[in-house]
Amino acid sequence: MRRRTFLKSTAIGAAASTLAAPAIAQQRRELVMVMTWPKKTPGVGVNAERFVDNVTALTGGGLNIKLYGAGDLVPAFESMEAVSAGTADLCHSTPYYWVGKEKAFNYFTGVPFGLTAQEMAAWINFGGGQALWEEVYEPFGIQPFYAGSSGTQAGGWFRKEVNTPDDFRGLKFRIAGLGGEVLRRMGATTVMVPPGEIAPALMSGAVDGADWIGPWNDLAFGLYRAAKYYYMPGPLEPGPGLEIIANKKVYEDLPPDFQAAIRVAAKATSEETLADFNYHNAVSLEPLISKHGVELRRFSDEILKVMAENSRDVVEELGRTDATTEKVHASFKTFLTQARAYAPRAEGGFLDAREMTGEV
Amino acid sequence: MRRRTFLKSTAIGAAASTLAAPAIAQQRRELVMVMTWPKKTPGVGVNAERFVDNVTALTGGGLNIKLYGAGDLVPAFESMEAVSAGTADLCHSTPYYWVGKEKAFNYFTGVPFGLTAQEMAAWINFGGGQALWEEVYEPFGIQPFYAGSSGTQAGGWFRKEVNTPDDFRGLKFRIAGLGGEVLRRMGATTVMVPPGEIAPALMSGAVDGADWIGPWNDLAFGLYRAAKYYYMPGPLEPGPGLEIIANKKVYEDLPPDFQAAIRVAAKATSEETLADFNYHNAVSLEPLISKHGVELRRFSDEILKVMAENSRDVVEELGRTDATTEKVHASFKTFLTQARAYAPRAEGGFLDAREMTGEV
Repeated sequence: MRRRTFLKSTAIGAAASTLAAPAIAQQRRELVMVMTWPKKTPGVGVNAERFVDNVTALTGGGLNIKLYGAGDLVPAFESMEAVSAGTADLCHSTPYYWVGKEKAFNYFTGVPFGLTAQEMAAWINFGGGQALWEEVYEPFGIQPFYAGSSGTQAGGWFRKEVNTPDDFRGLKFRIAGLGGEVLRRMGATTVMVPPGEIAPALMSGAVDGADWIGPWNDLAFGLYRAAKYYYMPGPLEPGPGLEIIANKKVYEDLPPDFQAAIRVAAKATSEETLADFNYHNAVSLEPLISKHGVELRRFSDEILKVMAENSRDVVEELGRTDATTEKVHASFKTFLTQARAYAPRAEGGFLDAREMTGEV
Repeated sequence: MRRRTFLKSTAIGAAASTLAAPAIAQQRRELVMVMTWPKKTPGVGVNAERFVDNVTALTGGGLNIKLYGAGDLVPAFESMEAVSAGTADLCHSTPYYWVGKEKAFNYFTGVPFGLTAQEMAAWINFGGGQALWEEVYEPFGIQPFYAGSSGTQAGGWFRKEVNTPDDFRGLKFRIAGLGGEVLRRMGATTVMVPPGEIAPALMSGAVDGADWIGPWNDLAFGLYRAAKYYYMPGPLEPGPGLEIIANKKVYEDLPPDFQAAIRVAAKATSEETLADFNYHNAVSLEPLISKHGVELRRFSDEILKVMAENSRDVVEELGRTDATTEKVHASFKTFLTQARAYAPRAEGGFLDAREMTGEV
């Protein structure tokens, strides 16, 4: 027996109730979305496209999003300003690109030795992170949505092995964000090189090392051709967060079902993006080693300890920047402390047990 | 300058194009969803309700799902049959409840010493898991969607410490699934006790130990009152998967935007459910210790090694059950091997580094 009931309203009925009825199929909207990466970029670009496709499907074609890659409509690093000004309606990016405007954005991408991707999703969804993030974006008239993560990144490519903290002294290293500040405190010189120029810069010796993302993207960029030693994991970027940001007024003026399409599709993208990176990173590690002769390394305990000390200093100073960073820092750190205590009893402890007990 | 265009179709226009236009707002549907847990159950029940609310919001109230808790419409363990027969349209559950019908369902909840929640999402979304899952459900006329996980579970509550594999001999332990078979091979007697009766059974000595979920749910059930030793992590359930299953014919007969609402809201639920468990487990660990005097323990390396050996045997035998399990086993194991090699270089390695370097 079917318990379902069919209640097809007639076309005339739908026409008569236009004001009260949901907007879909009575309203068509087109929004403009920019990205801080080129279209088709594996991991980030492709998942932004999946987001757009899901919104189209959810709204039966009512809400169409026109997607522009980095630089196609506005320069990549002006994307947030463009959304704030309404030149674009949406943007797929990562919050720490906007730290020139407000240092608190750092926390929503993540900090060195901070939260993993799963822990970040926990803090944002249930630990007060979302409300704080909205507060930080409020002056810009922007509504943020968490959009997943690349997971724990690799520590990067080195032309020579690094064995002690002193080996970072004088090293020219390509890295962005707070991790760069940590390495500078260890004596490195950090430089920013656009993604497409990392391999040539390493090859020519313009830099001694470079951090990019992880096995999947690093394999695609051919970084193994430019440096032999691949350090993993990268504790300076344990689970960098992505975002979909919307012009708040544009978002709030949308009918509720279109708003829901953006909000729910963003959450679906979070799931899918992390899964995409996890899958493709896992399957890309083996060919890097067996086909391309990459030498996998871990940072020594001594290096990790000095990195962690400097990370603590950098993050504590960040928290003291202004009232906003102080407030976000307090919330972030509260959950980090709880997550640090829990992880070894859960996923971290399990992964150790799985490794220790050998092949299943 | 706004680049957006407004194209509001008129009510008359909407009425004239009823056949070609998306169904939403021209069609209302009500579906029936059952669960294998009571309504309002933290983690599982609440996130099923969030799924339902999201579908309502996405379809502007066009697709309404009436949600029934375990036993309210059909007995919990007959839920899959109910969806297959069309008595219910949807169900929120976990696949290993249906292993009586097909042993391959085990892989979609997960196996002892197997994939974590993140790795499971990777395998299902990108490693071929979804296609195999659909194949396993095909004879039942069911369409499955991954719906997240509780993350790595706890190993359970013990009235006495267990220090060596021999301590499991003769132990009466409450546990479900493949983990139960692993403990039986270690000499334990396993029993199934409904969730609400775990604490009384432990208290009375009817069982010597019991596995439930993790700090959040175990705290809520008051299990700390019944046993003092809490073993974490639980390598027999590293990332048990949840599911939303739909009667396939009902799902396929829905208009494409209603289908998208179910599909995308399920992905959003995956993200949200894992975040919910991760957050609340992390914040529930400390009160268990400081307020309730729980003694945290890890299984010794010796115990873990014997558990892992037995787990390997159990899972290999499972794979040899029939042609279906063989096929699923091969795919699952291929990704497990890759994930095992990757994890210590990524999240697992990072969590160790974060723990080793102390408080940030």
